[in-house]
Amino acid sequence: MPHISLPDHLPGITGLLEFSQDTATPIRDLTQILLRGESSLTQGERELIATIVSHNNECIFCTSAHTAAADLLLGETETCEMVKHDLDNAPVSEKMKTLLTIAKMVQKSGKSVTPEAIANAKAQGATDMEIHDTVLIAALFCLYNRYVDGLASVTPADPSFYQYLGERIVNHGYTRLPQGYDHLKKS
Amino acid sequence: MPHISLPDHLPGITGLLEFSQDTATPIRDLTQILLRGESSLTQGERELIATIVSHNNECIFCTSAHTAAADLLLGETETCEMVKHDLDNAPVSEKMKTLLTIAKMVQKSGKSVTPEAIANAKAQGATDMEIHDTVLIAALFCLYNRYVDGLASVTPADPSFYQYLGERIVNHGYTRLPQGYDHLKKS
Repeated sequence: MPHISLPDHLPGITGLLEFSQDTATPIRDLTQILLRGESSLTQGERELIATIVSHNNECIFCTSAHTAAADLLLGETETCEMVKHDLDNAPVSEKMKTLLTIAKMVQKSGKSVTPEAIANAKAQGATDMEIHDTVLIAALFCLYNRYVDGLASVTPADPSFYQYLGERIVNHGYTRLPQGYDHLKKS
Repeated sequence: MPHISLPDHLPGITGLLEFSQDTATPIRDLTQILLRGESSLTQGERELIATIVSHNNECIFCTSAHTAAADLLLGETETCEMVKHDLDNAPVSEKMKTLLTIAKMVQKSGKSVTPEAIANAKAQGATDMEIHDTVLIAALFCLYNRYVDGLASVTPADPSFYQYLGERIVNHGYTRLPQGYDHLKKS
């Protein structure tokens, strides 16, 4: 049961964004810019950053939702599974491995990011903006994971829910839909 | 030295918000709403939440800046020092002790927040919105602390810098000043 009264039909982050709509707007905007705005990282790569951080924070809701989004964007499920469980051997570029390594460090703390990890990323061609965005996406998901689990919002057990949510994220992005979230409810 | 090229004269978060202005706007807006918007928690109380989280994340820049802001808002320096180092005996309300305890849990992880901590806060009269805002402010500073330290932005050693920054935060809030940050530079 959530720690505060949240709308029954809106699990995870969705109920929190409804509960506090004033703060939801900048949270949505920041996410939309970082994960869907112009970038030399693909949307799928950015969803992998969101996923690895959520996974290491053990936030089941966010991990499931962003795994679904990454899988849809990448067109397969193996990469995201490997990134979560065996990054060294995951089928991503060497540059992405260095950026995902930085994201894992940020998940622990800002101070955990080593000059060596940054040098490795730059050696693989990562730009300052890619490093910046990796750190900020990882930091943003440290916010999301704490928001979702810190208020004990509902985590659905049904995998089809996350498929719906992943499709919503991929097809509509992170901004609020004018008609609300009714399309996310299972019929 | 920062991990990426940041403006020399803008340390800590200030250089990052200049480096990436698109993402700075929603970050500023979220902070302004949470720390300066209408709330049954005072601005000083909300700065204490920001400070205790930054302190526990060992982010010297954010801890120094928000300590300065809290001290200015509270009109003394003892409370913030006690909150950071000896919360049980700090001169804050029993309700604030329970909320600051929740903030400390969020700093570790969302899953660290216990039903008992929430029950204690409610027993002291904390509302759902106060609990929500406490969790979200704590989560936001987990983002800030990681952003600032994850990119190794400059942490000035001169205490007077944080006094300037605290005054800016107290007098102007978190939104961008039209004239930029020039008034923050020491003359």
